Formats: sequence, C-alpha cells, structure tokens
Amino acid sequence: MSDLYLQYTKLRSTIADIENILAVLGWDHEVCMPKEGAFFRAQQISTLSGMSHEMSTSKEYIDVVEKLMAEPGLDFKQKKNIEESYKKLVKARKLNKKFIEKESKTYSEAYQDWIKARQEDKFSIFAPKLKEVVDIQKEKAELLGYKVHPYDALLDDYEPDLTTDHVEKVFKDVKINLSAFFDKIKGQPQPDQSFLNNHFDKTKQMALCRELITDLGYDWNSGRLDLSEHPFSTSFNPNDARITTRVNAEDLTESIWGSIHETGHAFYEMGLPSSEYGLPSGAYISLGMHESQSRLWENNVGKSANYIKTYWPLFQQYFPEAFGKTSDMEFFRGLNTVTPNLIRINSDEVTYHFHILLRFEIEKGIIEGSYEVKDLEEIWNSKIKEYLGLDVPSAKMGVLQDIHWSHGSFGYFPTYSLGSFYSAQFYHFANQAIPDLDQNISQKKFKPLLSWLRDNIHQYGHQFSSEELCTNVTGEGLNFKYFNNYLDKKYALVYQL
Amino acid sequence: MSDLYLQYTKLRSTIADIENILAVLGWDHEVCMPKEGAFFRAQQISTLSGMSHEMSTSKEYIDVVEKLMAEPGLDFKQKKNIEESYKKLVKARKLNKKFIEKESKTYSEAYQDWIKARQEDKFSIFAPKLKEVVDIQKEKAELLGYKVHPYDALLDDYEPDLTTDHVEKVFKDVKINLSAFFDKIKGQPQPDQSFLNNHFDKTKQMALCRELITDLGYDWNSGRLDLSEHPFSTSFNPNDARITTRVNAEDLTESIWGSIHETGHAFYEMGLPSSEYGLPSGAYISLGMHESQSRLWENNVGKSANYIKTYWPLFQQYFPEAFGKTSDMEFFRGLNTVTPNLIRINSDEVTYHFHILLRFEIEKGIIEGSYEVKDLEEIWNSKIKEYLGLDVPSAKMGVLQDIHWSHGSFGYFPTYSLGSFYSAQFYHFANQAIPDLDQNISQKKFKPLLSWLRDNIHQYGHQFSSEELCTNVTGEGLNFKYFNNYLDKKYALVYQL
Repeated sequence: MSDLYLQYTKLRSTIADIENILAVLGWDHEVCMPKEGAFFRAQQISTLSGMSHEMSTSKEYIDVVEKLMAEPGLDFKQKKNIEESYKKLVKARKLNKKFIEKESKTYSEAYQDWIKARQEDKFSIFAPKLKEVVDIQKEKAELLGYKVHPYDALLDDYEPDLTTDHVEKVFKDVKINLSAFFDKIKGQPQPDQSFLNNHFDKTKQMALCRELITDLGYDWNSGRLDLSEHPFSTSFNPNDARITTRVNAEDLTESIWGSIHETGHAFYEMGLPSSEYGLPSGAYISLGMHESQSRLWENNVGKSANYIKTYWPLFQQYFPEAFGKTSDMEFFRGLNTVTPNLIRINSDEVTYHFHILLRFEIEKGIIEGSYEVKDLEEIWNSKIKEYLGLDVPSAKMGVLQDIHWSHGSFGYFPTYSLGSFYSAQFYHFANQAIPDLDQNISQKKFKPLLSWLRDNIHQYGHQFSSEELCTNVTGEGLNFKYFNNYLDKKYALVYQL
Repeated sequence: MSDLYLQYTKLRSTIADIENILAVLGWDHEVCMPKEGAFFRAQQISTLSGMSHEMSTSKEYIDVVEKLMAEPGLDFKQKKNIEESYKKLVKARKLNKKFIEKESKTYSEAYQDWIKARQEDKFSIFAPKLKEVVDIQKEKAELLGYKVHPYDALLDDYEPDLTTDHVEKVFKDVKINLSAFFDKIKGQPQPDQSFLNNHFDKTKQMALCRELITDLGYDWNSGRLDLSEHPFSTSFNPNDARITTRVNAEDLTESIWGSIHETGHAFYEMGLPSSEYGLPSGAYISLGMHESQSRLWENNVGKSANYIKTYWPLFQQYFPEAFGKTSDMEFFRGLNTVTPNLIRINSDEVTYHFHILLRFEIEKGIIEGSYEVKDLEEIWNSKIKEYLGLDVPSAKMGVLQDIHWSHGSFGYFPTYSLGSFYSAQFYHFANQAIPDLDQNISQKKFKPLLSWLRDNIHQYGHQFSSEELCTNVTGEGLNFKYFNNYLDKKYALVYQL
C-alpha cells in the first residue's frame, strides 16, 4: 500500500469515527435521552457536525484524494474507493456554504409548517414553504448538474447512479403489471383477519421479537433491540449495529415484522467488512440496496407461508388466546391480505408500490415543472383514486402524510420500491444457490441464507453501484419480473387463485 | 461582556460540547454497548479525545485566556473563571507530550498487571509496575511543582488547593477521635442484622429505588437510572444527569443506598447553572465536594432513623416476607451496624475512614520516600491490624483491592473521607437553616433540603474552592467535630449508648 493511500485510509477512518459518534448521539437521542437534555444535545451535535464537515472538506484530505486520482498503482478496490471519495468531494464542492445554509434554514422552517399543517389538517399551510423547498431542489439540481433530467441529480443522493429514465422504466412495470395483478386480486373474497384484532401483551411481544431475530442470527454481542417512537436501525461499526421497534398492544404485526425488517438492515451493516472501516468499500451502497436487505427478511422470508408455518407453534405458545383457534395458513393469509390503504406505511406488499409510483410521478413533475405545488393536494387525491380507488378524506391522510418533503428529501421514495424489487430478484437467486433453502427455513436454519447475502452482497461494501452488484449476482440489472413472479406465487396461496 | 470574554465563553462551550460527547460515549460503553463494539469504540473515543485535547491547548484558546488574565474590567465571576482556566493551562503546559504518553502507557500496563495479580492473588505480580507508577507520580509532582510536600501536587488533581498538611490535620482527628469512638462501640452488643440476609426480587428492588429517588426529587425529564457493573453518575449538561446502580438479589442495601448516593451526585450536576455551561462557574468544584453531596443524601438523610421510619411501611410493602416481623428501628440499627470489614467499599460509616487513613498514610509515605513499594503488602496488613483489628488473609482482600493505583490515581482516596466530613458539616447547617427539616423528611418533603443545597452550594459551580465555599456556608473551613457529633447522635440510637 502506498504511503499516500495509507494516509487516505487514516483520514477516512478518523472522519468515520466522528460520523459514527454522531450516530451514537442520534441513537441516544431517540432511545435514551431524557426530554430536557435536548437543548444542549442539539448544540453538541451541531459542534461535532461542524468538525466532521471541516474534516471531510479539509485541504489535507482533498489533496490526498486528488493526488490518488492520478496514482497509477492502485488495485481495483483502492481505485473504486478513491473514485467514490472523489465523486463526493466534487459534489460537495458544487454546493457553496450560502446554499447549504439556505437549505438547512428552509427545511427547518418547512418542517415546522408541515407539523402545523398536519395539526390543522390544511395543505395550504404547508404549501408556501414546500414551494421554497422545491425551488431549492431545482437550484440544487442545477448546481450539481445532470445529463438528462434534473431529478437525476436528486436521486443520486439516495441511489447513486440511478436515473429518472430507469425509475420511469421500473414504474411502467408497476403501472401496467402491478395494476393487472391488483385487478385480479380485487375480485377475490378477502381472507379472515379478525384474529389480528386482539390484545397482545407488550412484554410478550418483545420476548417473541427477541426469540425470532435470535433465530435469524442477530448477534446480541454486536447489537441490541430497544424501543423508540419511530423504529430504525443504526450502526457505529460492523460490530455495533442496533435496531429499535415500536410495540402496539392492539397490533402484533408492527413489532414482529418491524423487528425483522430492522434486523435485515442490521445484517447488512454487520456484514460490511471491518477491515474497510471508513472507506467506501466498508460502507453500504445505497438506500435501495439497504432496503432490499430489510425487505428480503421481512417479506420474502418473514411473511412467507413456510416461515409462518414453521413459527406458528411459537406464535400460538406466546398468544394462545388470540391464536388458539387459528391455523397457520389462516394466519398467513390474514397477514398478507391486500387492502388498499390511504397511508403508505400501513400498506401491503402490492398496493404499497402505487404509493411510491404516485410520489415519484409528483416529484418528477414538480422538479421538471409540469406540476405546481399549489395543485399537489388535488393531484395526490386524483392519483389515489386512480391507483387505489380510494377517496382521500383529509390532507393528513393524503398529501401531508410523509415527513420527507419537509426535509427536502426529493428522490428518496423510489428507493423503497427498488428495495422490494431487488429483494425479490436476490431471493430468487439465493433460492437457486441454496437448493434446500425452504427446508432450511422450516428447520429454523437461516445461516445459509445470511451467508449467501454476506458473500454476494454485504462483503463488497460500496465497490459497485446497485445495478452493477445486481448484475454480478443475478446476471442482469433490476428486472421487475422477479417481483411479479414472487407476487404470483405468494398470492396464489393467499387468495387461493 | 467584552468581545474577548465572549470569545472565551464560546471556546469553552465548544470544548465542553466535546467533553460531554465523550461522557455520552462513556455512559453508552458502560450501560448499552454490545461487547463486540469495544474495538472501534475505543478508536472513536481516542480520536475525539485527541480533538478535545487539541482544542483545549490550541493557540487561539491559550491566547484568549492569557489576554484576559491582564484584562481589568472583569467582574468577580468572570475573573474566577479566567483564573481557573489559566491555572489549568499552566498545569497542562508543565506536562510535556512525552511524559503524558509514558504515563498513559504505564497505567495501561499497570492495570493489566493489577488484573493478573488479583487473579493469582499475588502482590508481587503488581509490585514492579506499581513501582513505575509511583516513579511517574514523583516525576509528575516535580514537573508540576509544590510548596511544601510533593503529594500536594497530586492532591490538586482531585481536590484543588488541598494540601498534605491539611489532610494530615484532618486524619489526626480520624486517628484520635474516631479511634476513641470506635473503641466505645466495640464493647457494645451488635444489633440483629439477620433480616438483611434475605432474597430480594430484583425487579422490585429497582421499582423501590425509582420510588425513593423520585420522592427525593430526581427529575426523570433530566435523568435516568440504569444498570451497570460498577454504579456511577455522569452528566452531559445540567439537564441530562444520569445514574446507574447494581442490583444484588441477596443484598438490598447495594441498590437502594447506592441509588440514593448516585442521586446525590446527580443533584449536584443538575444544580449547576446552565447559563454557565462549559465555564468553571458551571462545573463542580472537586471530588470531595461531589462526594459530600452524594454522601449527604445517602448517609445523613437516607440512613437516618427518621428516613427509615418514614419509609418503613414502603419497605415492608415491597418486601413483606423479609421485613414483616422487623420494626423500623430494628432495621435502622441493622443497617447502621459498625463491623470492621477488610474491603473499603463494604465498610460502614465509621470504619470506612480508617481505610482512607491507611491509604493516605501509604500514599504520602511512598511519594515522600519513607515507604517502598515492595513493602506495601506488609505495611497494609499491619495497618489493618492496628486500625481495624483484622488479619488480612490474602492480597486480594488487602493491598490489591482498589483499582486506583493501577490508574495512577494517587491523591484520590482522601476525597472520599472529605466528602463524609463536609456532608456532616453542611447537614448541620442545613438543619439550622431549615428548622423543620426532620419534620419535612418524615412527610417525604425533600425540596427544602435540595433547594438549600442548590442555593448554598450547587449554583456557585467552581467559583470557590471547597474550603472557601465551606467557609461561606458554615462560617469556617472543614471541621471534623461536625462529623463527630453526627456519629455521636446516630450511634447513640444504633447502639442505644
């Protein structure tokens, strides 16, 4: 390793230390911090964020990266790391300090207005600030530059190298194939779900969560499960990847499949190579790839008939009163019922993607100027009617439901759907590579699957883009057909098609 | 406020942010962190510690403090802050980088040897490294400088401005008066303690701890109680002061009076003025003063006959099987029994101070050269025999019991006793200032006492030394007679003298 590259790894490691400490502060804030601690904690975080920014834009660091861009002797991984770091530097340089300050001020005000708008259930309270947020997004796209569509520049923050064209192609499938699939289901009688409307002791729910994710292979020596208002996963290094959940006494599914979902995220972080700490090769690729890992465990594994059958005795043991008279397949069907919901995060695996489709269409339209902010509520409501057949009774249940836009997160939503579609594709190939995968699961053996994900996805960190990695693993880029096949197979069982 | 002073407060606030973030990392390490997280956490802490050190020794900071030392227009508090900050800078400048590195390397090795020596129960394994630690202490004393005794320089780290002469004077009282008092008790029949040997459900213990410290006034919006292997209190700002405890199913006293002790520490931190965040005027004075606050609540309040009587119904309600047949005064007597113990931390309020006396004598002797490390075990054992009448069966139960020396903490021990003595003196004056204090306590009203401590001690931060503050509050410096009177009164009840 050249001295210069060594210097680069040391600088990256130090920058990562500070970023990971910020993550510890964030975790503590959500999970542990007493209420009154907020004021000085915000100041402490701001101080450290400033130091982190200074380090990652320091002359020393920039010089090292720029010199290494011209260094001939780097191996593949080293070259990828330098290119990725350089790309980030170039990007950061395009956004001047004045822009960053305006951005942060506007988002903070927009968040306040969003809260107020939700309280009074009026989109018009949020609209003026949202207009400012959108203008900032447009300005950002111009500052960052793009080849074809300004939205490309925004997508890149969440899913590097993803283009608007690509998302459009994917969502054409959603629009055509998923609509056809949804139409097919709509005619079927709904499975019974009444047993899900029960009281589930919170302590027992937590115990069951722990037992289930222990079986999946979550390593308690490198993680922990806590409660928080909004479930999340975070990590400070591959050996400390923590998850949280929320427990609702009236809804078992939130804690159980929420925990499995977050475990999938944690598996990805735990599987990143420690030896590459701080480097792109030791970091996740994208939000879409991260979401593919959480959804693979939550949906492809955790909501499969096989998994439910395997764990049904345990569910019954924990909640004999609720489930004593229910069969495993009844539970499977009830759990996987397709029912259009006004709220994205309460949606099933099918109709969820119409939610993302409409958000993508709105974001694209608004960035290219074919939609205007003042019309968003109307556009939203008509799209919900078109895709889900539902009437939106209030702004809170519609256009005001997500926090993302108030934070300036334009380009984030598509990664949720990409996660589902990638996970179906990966799971298909995991099934081919591990011929007895179903049998493994029915014996509560998850190690072969986890090892496959580690070997094929986690260990590479961010050496490839999602599309490159997907091609390496499956022989092609993202292909919606795998998700389609997955739905066909699963819902044949749910709706006895 | 002058621009320069404003610059000083901003720099101090930023330095405090980083120090408090380090405290968050420390808390997480002891309370939450999964085992495997240790490696990268150590690296993260080391990175941030380095940055903290750089900031507090930066040219910018030093320049500002030095200029302010010559500034005429500062008010009393500002002047005190600058003097205190300047004192620290001067001190830090006397220890060169090479010395600091040698120190840290030696302590880390000494700690390892201390662990090994304890495992094999052999002082000789620890002695060689301890000799090196002692040599470093001597060198440190010379580098820092002192007026009379080299030990003065070491005491200053824990109790600023305390001198060896002063400690000697205090411990003359321990040696003479406390020995006489101990002799008087030794002849008495021992109260029954058998009811303390019981099984106490851990969950119930924690619930009782919470109830008791809630009554004392611990603010859960600004703190939390968790479990850790070694109980401690820590704070990240006055609105986030956390405590931990340890729960032993065979020993109720550890969790209960441990929690009350740590609550006393947290009260001090919570009572420091937020407006002085990062400044000496917003920081605690010394370990001795901190310990006076924890021991006041633990012993003067929590182990008093009045407190026990008041809470006896609650104790009985929580543990009817253990305490159903015990009276409040029986419990009070059993709890406060004087029984010499080989282990310092298991000792009662009387014999505890002989432990500190012998450590002080040993530390002083070893620093001035009248004792040698190789003889320490023998010296220890003969002093334990002299003061407590006990034979030490093993090094682990004797000279190897405390971690302090392996960390290079010479001069720390005396602050424990000072804490007890200050607390007796403060409590005496609190009693005079709050005429119905006893009645308050028997009505579970602790606010008047806490307010008195806030008004007389906490709010001043480190504007005064312990002795100055003690004189401000009680009209004189530390006077052992208050502790003596406290013991006379308390043990008259315990031993029915």
